[in-house]
Amino acid sequence: MARFLKSRLKAKGAAPGSLIFMGDKKMEETRVSLLAYNENEIFEQDYDSIDELLTNVKSGHVNWINVDGIHDTDIITKIGKEFNISPLALENIPDTGQRPKIYEDPGYVVLITKAVYFDREENKISVEQISFVLLDNIIISFQEKTGDHFEHVRNRIRNSVGRIRRAGADYLAYALIDSLLDNYLINLEQIGSKIEALSSRLNDNNNEISTLLFHYKTEISYFRRAIVPLKPLTVRLIKSDTKIISQENLVYFELLTDLSDQAHEAIDSYINMINDLINMYNTNLSNKVNQVMKVLTIFASIFIPLTFIAGVYGTNFDYIPELQYRNAYFIMLGAMALVAGVMIYFFKKHKWF
Amino acid sequence: MARFLKSRLKAKGAAPGSLIFMGDKKMEETRVSLLAYNENEIFEQDYDSIDELLTNVKSGHVNWINVDGIHDTDIITKIGKEFNISPLALENIPDTGQRPKIYEDPGYVVLITKAVYFDREENKISVEQISFVLLDNIIISFQEKTGDHFEHVRNRIRNSVGRIRRAGADYLAYALIDSLLDNYLINLEQIGSKIEALSSRLNDNNNEISTLLFHYKTEISYFRRAIVPLKPLTVRLIKSDTKIISQENLVYFELLTDLSDQAHEAIDSYINMINDLINMYNTNLSNKVNQVMKVLTIFASIFIPLTFIAGVYGTNFDYIPELQYRNAYFIMLGAMALVAGVMIYFFKKHKWF
Amino acid sequence: MARFLKSRLKAKGAAPGSLIFMGDKKMEETRVSLLAYNENEIFEQDYDSIDELLTNVKSGHVNWINVDGIHDTDIITKIGKEFNISPLALENIPDTGQRPKIYEDPGYVVLITKAVYFDREENKISVEQISFVLLDNIIISFQEKTGDHFEHVRNRIRNSVGRIRRAGADYLAYALIDSLLDNYLINLEQIGSKIEALSSRLNDNNNEISTLLFHYKTEISYFRRAIVPLKPLTVRLIKSDTKIISQENLVYFELLTDLSDQAHEAIDSYINMINDLINMYNTNLSNKVNQVMKVLTIFASIFIPLTFIAGVYGTNFDYIPELQYRNAYFIMLGAMALVAGVMIYFFKKHKWF
Amino acid sequence: MARFLKSRLKAKGAAPGSLIFMGDKKMEETRVSLLAYNENEIFEQDYDSIDELLTNVKSGHVNWINVDGIHDTDIITKIGKEFNISPLALENIPDTGQRPKIYEDPGYVVLITKAVYFDREENKISVEQISFVLLDNIIISFQEKTGDHFEHVRNRIRNSVGRIRRAGADYLAYALIDSLLDNYLINLEQIGSKIEALSSRLNDNNNEISTLLFHYKTEISYFRRAIVPLKPLTVRLIKSDTKIISQENLVYFELLTDLSDQAHEAIDSYINMINDLINMYNTNLSNKVNQVMKVLTIFASIFIPLTFIAGVYGTNFDYIPELQYRNAYFIMLGAMALVAGVMIYFFKKHKWF
Amino acid sequence: MARFLKSRLKAKGAAPGSLIFMGDKKMEETRVSLLAYNENEIFEQDYDSIDELLTNVKSGHVNWINVDGIHDTDIITKIGKEFNISPLALENIPDTGQRPKIYEDPGYVVLITKAVYFDREENKISVEQISFVLLDNIIISFQEKTGDHFEHVRNRIRNSVGRIRRAGADYLAYALIDSLLDNYLINLEQIGSKIEALSSRLNDNNNEISTLLFHYKTEISYFRRAIVPLKPLTVRLIKSDTKIISQENLVYFELLTDLSDQAHEAIDSYINMINDLINMYNTNLSNKVNQVMKVLTIFASIFIPLTFIAGVYGTNFDYIPELQYRNAYFIMLGAMALVAGVMIYFFKKHKWF
Repeated sequence: MARFLKSRLKAKGAAPGSLIFMGDKKMEETRVSLLAYNENEIFEQDYDSIDELLTNVKSGHVNWINVDGIHDTDIITKIGKEFNISPLALENIPDTGQRPKIYEDPGYVVLITKAVYFDREENKISVEQISFVLLDNIIISFQEKTGDHFEHVRNRIRNSVGRIRRAGADYLAYALIDSLLDNYLINLEQIGSKIEALSSRLNDNNNEISTLLFHYKTEISYFRRAIVPLKPLTVRLIKSDTKIISQENLVYFELLTDLSDQAHEAIDSYINMINDLINMYNTNLSNKVNQVMKVLTIFASIFIPLTFIAGVYGTNFDYIPELQYRNAYFIMLGAMALVAGVMIYFFKKHKWF
Repeated sequence: MARFLKSRLKAKGAAPGSLIFMGDKKMEETRVSLLAYNENEIFEQDYDSIDELLTNVKSGHVNWINVDGIHDTDIITKIGKEFNISPLALENIPDTGQRPKIYEDPGYVVLITKAVYFDREENKISVEQISFVLLDNIIISFQEKTGDHFEHVRNRIRNSVGRIRRAGADYLAYALIDSLLDNYLINLEQIGSKIEALSSRLNDNNNEISTLLFHYKTEISYFRRAIVPLKPLTVRLIKSDTKIISQENLVYFELLTDLSDQAHEAIDSYINMINDLINMYNTNLSNKVNQVMKVLTIFASIFIPLTFIAGVYGTNFDYIPELQYRNAYFIMLGAMALVAGVMIYFFKKHKWF
Repeated sequence: MARFLKSRLKAKGAAPGSLIFMGDKKMEETRVSLLAYNENEIFEQDYDSIDELLTNVKSGHVNWINVDGIHDTDIITKIGKEFNISPLALENIPDTGQRPKIYEDPGYVVLITKAVYFDREENKISVEQISFVLLDNIIISFQEKTGDHFEHVRNRIRNSVGRIRRAGADYLAYALIDSLLDNYLINLEQIGSKIEALSSRLNDNNNEISTLLFHYKTEISYFRRAIVPLKPLTVRLIKSDTKIISQENLVYFELLTDLSDQAHEAIDSYINMINDLINMYNTNLSNKVNQVMKVLTIFASIFIPLTFIAGVYGTNFDYIPELQYRNAYFIMLGAMALVAGVMIYFFKKHKWF
Repeated sequence: MARFLKSRLKAKGAAPGSLIFMGDKKMEETRVSLLAYNENEIFEQDYDSIDELLTNVKSGHVNWINVDGIHDTDIITKIGKEFNISPLALENIPDTGQRPKIYEDPGYVVLITKAVYFDREENKISVEQISFVLLDNIIISFQEKTGDHFEHVRNRIRNSVGRIRRAGADYLAYALIDSLLDNYLINLEQIGSKIEALSSRLNDNNNEISTLLFHYKTEISYFRRAIVPLKPLTVRLIKSDTKIISQENLVYFELLTDLSDQAHEAIDSYINMINDLINMYNTNLSNKVNQVMKVLTIFASIFIPLTFIAGVYGTNFDYIPELQYRNAYFIMLGAMALVAGVMIYFFKKHKWF
Repeated sequence: MARFLKSRLKAKGAAPGSLIFMGDKKMEETRVSLLAYNENEIFEQDYDSIDELLTNVKSGHVNWINVDGIHDTDIITKIGKEFNISPLALENIPDTGQRPKIYEDPGYVVLITKAVYFDREENKISVEQISFVLLDNIIISFQEKTGDHFEHVRNRIRNSVGRIRRAGADYLAYALIDSLLDNYLINLEQIGSKIEALSSRLNDNNNEISTLLFHYKTEISYFRRAIVPLKPLTVRLIKSDTKIISQENLVYFELLTDLSDQAHEAIDSYINMINDLINMYNTNLSNKVNQVMKVLTIFASIFIPLTFIAGVYGTNFDYIPELQYRNAYFIMLGAMALVAGVMIYFFKKHKWF
């Protein structure tokens, strides 16, 4: 859970609207870059400082400012000043303990979301906070570290795939959020295939399987926490009075609610699947142990009276008449065989094995 | 689950509105056919190409275009161009990873649904995506492979059963969706009878039954995923402003919500039934094992002190006075019988067996 | 479940509005009867054919037409024609696989309900479909077989108990539905007393009790399926624009929603009660088995070292010094008693029994 | 459950609005009393008959008529006639099988509620139906038997505590319902302290504790059934158009919804607490039994090979070389000690005990 | 639970609006202090009596009156009189059995909340009732005992951090409630880290872990009871017509609903986590016990037939031919080895160990 609920102790006593980085620093230097494009041209550049970048924002273009690293709150402050964004809206960006949330203003929208990865090798989920500031013809994205979340979108812009170069900043916003949601589905599918692989190993003897099943259940809950608050956000975005999103692109944002429904449904399915697998595993296990115990107990039960008979004739009484009959030993063996036979018959008849 | 959540990786980075086939190719060649009818005449024909078919669409008739095979996205593109359908609406048709959904436009409605089959022999569910495009006097249906989903409807048209020949394309749409829902109920009934058959085998000794119960639970969840989103779709169809559905036929679409309620209820009943059966099976099993173990333990417990007594008189001490009494052996046997009797009485009194 | 979800296969391919009997034929001949009354006179008669009956419907009276047997769809068709009722509304009457539902029209209301009986001797629930057609001064009731559902209402009419003779057909409709709901409560009470009887037998040793508990749980679910959809129906009846129900009698229909709430609540209570009883039974059982097993294991554990000691002195070594001491045998017995005593003390101290 | 769902069989066939006593007669004679007060004077009197009482109702006073005993339906009928109350509203008063409900009329309100007691000695809940008729300046309360539900309210009136003497009949109604709700909370607290007392006895060996826990769970459900329908009733009272409740006293009725929320929450907490205690008890129990069984099994396992070795040297073969060595016996003892030591080491190493 | 549902018995029969202290007295003397500030100056003083304090309230300043100790209801009464607050609103302040609630009046708002602490050393939750009276330029806070809930806010005022000195009393109210909510999150995080620490000890052998898990589950429920009613309160505060909260500060109160969502979500996560851990613990435990029991049973089963063979040759029959063969003893040992080997092979083959 600690991957979500970050220590708020650090900020205790800070006034609302204070920009305080809360989380684990995931990279050293922050990196800022600008991608400006319109239908005719495209301009892509990394900058050493945010000030330099901000002077290069191009009007008549869609400007996508990307900031990798949110621990340097100076950058966020400068962006806030440049575009007149309320500190209350900005304070969520460097605070990685936030739930996905939205801050609407007539002039801009701030969107806090989570990227969730499943690391197939470590069998673990990582959570990263991704924030977006949507302005009229500018999108600013904040990531905790340099990654490849949006490389596909970048390529579509570079290669002018689809309508992305002709559409405005709102369409870019859609493309970025869509890319995040797509990632959820892809990562869910990967964790899902891990779970399905476990389902064929339910008869294995060790308890590693149940540990793994509980582990995946916990990991999947990270997805839920990232996705569940996302749908109301997109709905609120669609219904909001903000003019950031143009009427003609609203239909794309409606697609996002479908995607988050799909992700939500997949999560529920996997949780149900894991619960059923845990139940099956337990049922199987107890069936098997019961089976073994029963067979062994029956086995022991057959020998118990036989050993008793042998014990009786092992006593050293001076006068045990049977001992003197010449064939008594064989009669005893026969009697033992008979007892064993009757018991086996009895157990079989009661379907005890 | 993978039968629902198809790999989205293939399409990653594609622009929205791109027609990309996602799923398992279930047939080689696509097949297109046209069934045009009005109250007086009926016209039925397979075509080699969609272009040829489109030139034969008859005005003044209800035209039902059926496409078997959705991997050839060219056909979908051509249909989209011919009838002016948005690529955003069309992109769901070849993507089998979609949930049932609806896309409304003043001029047309695109409906993505799922056909779900229970294969009695393989004890498995298959899921197929069936899409409908509803236009003014044209219905286009897309199936993943040639099948017999709609043969009953086709026959009703051919034999002019009921009002189908007199009614418009909207009534045909209703008949097709009704046919899908009917199929859900029939297939649910089949899986249901399988489950009921299991309920009489709960006392069997192997754990095949619990495996089967969990299996059916998983399989039934495919029905749920196909049916649950369907009811809001029909409701939205009824309430939508689209003029595709005429006022007089609205009552039929209301019947569909009843049918999906019925299917939904049946699914819940079966899930509850399976859960109860699993619980009963576990209770029965542990009752039986406990019973066996208890009887055997009691049996063993009776012999334990007897064997101990025999052991004592089997020791080789030089001086054990009892050994020399002539009837000591028989006294010992009598004492053993007494001990056994007392124990059996004690166990009986405590109702231990 | 099959008692609810009847085979829809028979009707596959039939057009909507077709009257097809689906269910088990519960009587041979259908019976039609008319009960017409007003404040002053009452007229009661069985007829051989529905045609004859229909000619005897009396204006200025409340006419209650009762049809026992729904497999003869001709009768339903004739009634439909006589009173101008849509085939879509009628098709539910002979289809016993329906959920309780309502069909409203400005001129009439068709109501499909279920009568649910608990047969105390067979410990089983039977479900029967009862349909009502409410017209202006006519009520038509359809039952699957001749029974005594409405005898109480009939008697109230005959004996002019309460306001029934002064009130209109809508009040009769209320009295009939009220009678059905009353029956639910009476039958629920009977099944409830069976369950309560079980609660005092939880300590019995056989697993018949758990089987019965699961059985009652399943049976009660039939009540739920009959009652749950009924409340929205009565609400819809109250809120509908139909003029079938007069303003002054609306208050009675509101009472019906209270009754169905009461029935619903009783069902939930019984389900909870059964679940608790099953849990208690399992807890009791495993407690008891554990207790027995523990006592026996402790008992065995005391004898195990004693038998070992006897075994040691039963070995035939040439030189075992102890064997030659005169009192060695008694010392051994004493040592055995000591070992047993120490073990019993140890077990007692740890509260193992 | 039978304490709630009383036999409706008795009334079967009765017309709605018939006053029929359904329940267990809890006292012999009915008692009627009048408490009339205004700011200046107070008048308190028991009467032999309701007729006599009704002639003494004082205008210009708040009149509180209390009826102990509801099996004498004549009294209810007379009250109904005197104050013009519909039989439909009155019929619920003598029917103890009712859920809490409300009947509103412009001129009066009939309120059916339940008093629930926890008898600490018998560890049982009793349920009593308390009904109120609220008129303009008259409150009529019906109780099943003479009790002390409202003694506190009576005392407040007598001692003129707070604003009760200055306020109208609606404030008295509030005070009475408030008193009922207070009683729920006090009784819940008593049952709660019983449950908490159990929580410290979870390690006891008998299964009395689990029986008690299940018992309390059932008993608490009676509270739920009394309280859950109460909140919507108070809400409906607040929102109703009836002029019975004056605008200035509405705030008090709002307090009632808070109280019922509090009671509801307490019930949920106790149910959760009991469920957790049952789970803990089961976990503890199975832990403890497992522990005992494991120790004993290990203990037995150590002696099994030792006894085998003794058995081998107890055989009577003519030629067993070991038997003749002078120290063989001691070597055997040593070997046995070694085997036991190795086994104990092995078990310790695997942390088996 | 008793920490929430305090004895209402004490107050039984009291009129509504009576100020009666209900709870545990947590400090001896009550302490009253005033903190008055505006943008330019700050004034902080403890007083001996509330009367003295009230004369020092400064107009033109934000006045924060803090009362530590609520058992002296005189103070509350005097405050009520001074600021014209209804006794109905005040009565909740000294009654610690209240749920969080709100009382709105055009002139003031009374807010009852709970502070919840997790004491890491005692592993226990303490609950304290904190009440606020919000007036135009005055905030009155009531605490059960002197504590440090609001020290951070006090410091922000003293050091003029953020806008707190420039904003009005409503902003101070926000800051105080925000501080409470922050505390929930910090305390939840602490209990969370305790739970996470347990998750790595699931393989420990004692049942202390399950006891702790159930303990934390109970403790967390105190948070839920404090937080769940808080969100509707803040929503009601935002939507209320009261002029206490200025339009420009509403945005801060909206932040509070986010915070309570976050706390709520964290609670749900921890409850789920604990449930999963309890299940895992139980699964692990029964796996381990089963493993041990199985190995031991197999071990015993191998020796049982061997001991039987030894027993047979330990009998004292006069004529047992085998005993006389010179190598019979070694043949017996060989046969025993063979039997053991076959059994081990059989068990291995069936994967029994």
